[in-house]
Amino acid sequence: MFETAELGRKVSRKEYEEAVPALRTDLLRVQNELRLEPRFSVVMVFAGVDGAGKGETVNTLHAWMDPRYLHAHALGLPSGEEAERPPMYAFWRVLPARGRIAAFMGSWYTNPILSRVYGETSDADLGAALARINAFERELVAGDVLVLKFWFHIAKKIQKKRLKQLAKDPELSWRVTERDWKHFELYDEFLPVAERAIRETSTGEAPWTIVEGTDRRYRELTVGRHILAAIAQRLEAEPAAAPAKEPPPRLERREDQPTILSLLDASKQIAPDAYAKKLRQLQGRLNRLSRDVARKGISGVFAFEGWDAAGKGGAIRRVTAALDARFYEVIPIAAPTDEELARPYMWRFWRQLPRAGQLTIFDRSWYGRVLVERVEGFASKEEWLRAYKEINQFESQLCEHGVALAKFWLHIDNDEQARRFAAREETSYKKYKITAEDYRNREKWDLYEDAVNEMVERTSTALTPWTLVEANDKRHARVKVLETCCAALENALERARKKRR
Amino acid sequence: MFETAELGRKVSRKEYEEAVPALRTDLLRVQNELRLEPRFSVVMVFAGVDGAGKGETVNTLHAWMDPRYLHAHALGLPSGEEAERPPMYAFWRVLPARGRIAAFMGSWYTNPILSRVYGETSDADLGAALARINAFERELVAGDVLVLKFWFHIAKKIQKKRLKQLAKDPELSWRVTERDWKHFELYDEFLPVAERAIRETSTGEAPWTIVEGTDRRYRELTVGRHILAAIAQRLEAEPAAAPAKEPPPRLERREDQPTILSLLDASKQIAPDAYAKKLRQLQGRLNRLSRDVARKGISGVFAFEGWDAAGKGGAIRRVTAALDARFYEVIPIAAPTDEELARPYMWRFWRQLPRAGQLTIFDRSWYGRVLVERVEGFASKEEWLRAYKEINQFESQLCEHGVALAKFWLHIDNDEQARRFAAREETSYKKYKITAEDYRNREKWDLYEDAVNEMVERTSTALTPWTLVEANDKRHARVKVLETCCAALENALERARKKRR
Repeated sequence: MFETAELGRKVSRKEYEEAVPALRTDLLRVQNELRLEPRFSVVMVFAGVDGAGKGETVNTLHAWMDPRYLHAHALGLPSGEEAERPPMYAFWRVLPARGRIAAFMGSWYTNPILSRVYGETSDADLGAALARINAFERELVAGDVLVLKFWFHIAKKIQKKRLKQLAKDPELSWRVTERDWKHFELYDEFLPVAERAIRETSTGEAPWTIVEGTDRRYRELTVGRHILAAIAQRLEAEPAAAPAKEPPPRLERREDQPTILSLLDASKQIAPDAYAKKLRQLQGRLNRLSRDVARKGISGVFAFEGWDAAGKGGAIRRVTAALDARFYEVIPIAAPTDEELARPYMWRFWRQLPRAGQLTIFDRSWYGRVLVERVEGFASKEEWLRAYKEINQFESQLCEHGVALAKFWLHIDNDEQARRFAAREETSYKKYKITAEDYRNREKWDLYEDAVNEMVERTSTALTPWTLVEANDKRHARVKVLETCCAALENALERARKKRR
Repeated sequence: MFETAELGRKVSRKEYEEAVPALRTDLLRVQNELRLEPRFSVVMVFAGVDGAGKGETVNTLHAWMDPRYLHAHALGLPSGEEAERPPMYAFWRVLPARGRIAAFMGSWYTNPILSRVYGETSDADLGAALARINAFERELVAGDVLVLKFWFHIAKKIQKKRLKQLAKDPELSWRVTERDWKHFELYDEFLPVAERAIRETSTGEAPWTIVEGTDRRYRELTVGRHILAAIAQRLEAEPAAAPAKEPPPRLERREDQPTILSLLDASKQIAPDAYAKKLRQLQGRLNRLSRDVARKGISGVFAFEGWDAAGKGGAIRRVTAALDARFYEVIPIAAPTDEELARPYMWRFWRQLPRAGQLTIFDRSWYGRVLVERVEGFASKEEWLRAYKEINQFESQLCEHGVALAKFWLHIDNDEQARRFAAREETSYKKYKITAEDYRNREKWDLYEDAVNEMVERTSTALTPWTLVEANDKRHARVKVLETCCAALENALERARKKRR
């Protein structure tokens, strides 16, 4: 694979100096077009052999382009607040808005490759990491990000020469660290791992470009021209005709086809006395558990979905009543802000992930994509179909990081909803909760039921199961929610214990 | 001061249980009104003697109110990424948007009071810290934040009893730390410091409420009712008639009154040869300095202002050309996002402050308030007049934290600007930079000149001086900018050295 990057390609000073002015002008031009009509963002990965000129190339690009809309990130191993979240958080956090360009030196490839080279992970681990990277990049591409990946290669003997040269230069010797020499010694182990990484992540939507790093002028022109061509091509592409965002046709519900909701026993209930006792007991248990996880730096994410008036708010309050206000946050999901709209869909949820030891409760969640946005036609079919995978990726990363995850669908039946709407109309301080839209939504009950059915089918996994809560009886619902939250925390504590062993 | 908080006031269970339902309903109602018409946000400070019930009260408020729009923060001593910025960053960072409520346990009072009690700081230090707090809270209030501050007090013998009780309870003993016992021992030192803090920060716009913490029911009702009354009052207040945002009248410039700009010698220049040499030399120096500050964890903030076409972009690129792309970021200041518009003016600059070892370059800055917003009438007179003080506060906090700060006004004369606009019209790839608005702005030259003059007069301090750059000659301007950046970093390094001694 790397043979073609050891051909000794060079660019003469004359050719370079003749080519650069036009290239700079063109790069500035496309960058400016991108900024003025921000239809997509650009994420560039710079990876490869140490000493192959990644850093210098990024510096040159910054000199050529407008540094106000181009930002370099040197994220290697996450640290501090980043390390308290799943590894990809560090990258999600700094994703550029549409119209902007980001250069990642030290990227989502750094840790998977290095930990395999160092022998800390297995081939299978690497495979899993690469599969996750593919999913991540697909998500970026689908979220209007142009992904450009450059692999800088130099032969081993050239790497050695470079390091020696640098080490001799009193001005530059600081750049050669012990880690660099260690990486040099591992050159032969590094190459096959790198090759596999490139092979398995060179996808149609986010291919690698291998850059021969020996000659500075050659690599700068190569990378610069590649970036120019890619952005120009994307700018010139007809803005994709916005995919149809029509609501799906009203389905003929066949009576003999049950949904996951129709099988729920909505009549489950619990008597007031038993409830009072159970509530006290469960809240005590949840309180102790929340302190345990806070001490151990385990975080939790509880997501609440359900029919309008199913009692999400009341259930959430029974949970938070058991918690110390310093340890949790409730995030109501409503219309996205403009900063959120300028980035891939899942960004707004990644940015809300809790720090170590904290709990975040989402009142409505990332499932909006496959529920309200699907049914109301706010998302195209392609968007909401894609979302199942994006959601599974997101949640599996939470679980792998040891986050306690619970997700609830609060189910009431259609008659119960009608009763509750009527009751709300009569309670002065709850009246504002009922709008004409709520009644319109009732007409789409079957469409929502199908959406819920498919959501559970596609996103309820062994690690990230849905909890369907029979909620006609509020007491029963609250008890089930509290029990599930407790179980999720216990589970996370148990997994952490096993991991430590 | 605290005598009135040792009166043993109590609320009977009966009275409490009768009062709570209506109080809860009212709290929910005003919270909801606030959320639906977000004209202001609410920031609550909970401070006072340990064991006086701050935490329990905040928990109760969370149970009474809607936890989705009420968020508690336990920020004591800043840590991690927060510690890399000035101390107030931790609080700015989490300021609620309009319509939301935040409760701070552990607030901007924690560190000033405790470090004085521990004897780490002097009375004068405390005075300075309190003055800064007053300025901060005034800024919040002016930025549509309702600031409510509660001081929880209990007598020493009650604190002792509480701690002992907690320590005995196997379920609660975790809450009593060594630090708590240490604070108990310092009770008598704590009180006078607290008294001074309260006295000096009980202002008209952000007064303290002292709460007797002995009886749980009393303190909860007191605090709840106080919050209710304050929010309700603010909601009922006529929305302040938006202050006139008209541009100031065109001034009669008196020829005999020079401005700071008219005294600049715009003709200063440097020959091409000397420039090439100087540029190389200064960029080398800046590069070495940037690595020094990165190693030492010192950060830098460079702000660029100037006439249209004065060469800000070119000057910035000469600076960034000397820097490693991983160590800096250029932030162009344009229209605020909706997340920024929902918070006090300076929030959008606080959130961009660099981490330790990083440089942030602002292309236009917080001075927009007293320049374009003033002249164009986007800010009311009251807003831009207030901004001078807010800016000085912001910058002095940067300096106290050891940040290298430089701020530039690039000055060209009116004729030179006309020449540059014409030249831009003729250069295809610069044409987009010229709009009809640029020509309109030229007509307001005198107004801008007066604004610049006043800006320099009010915000050029010994610690945070303006650098006025004669920029008719671009070479001269770039050299002066580079020299100033170098000096700012050297200065910061020197201050850090002295501090360490």
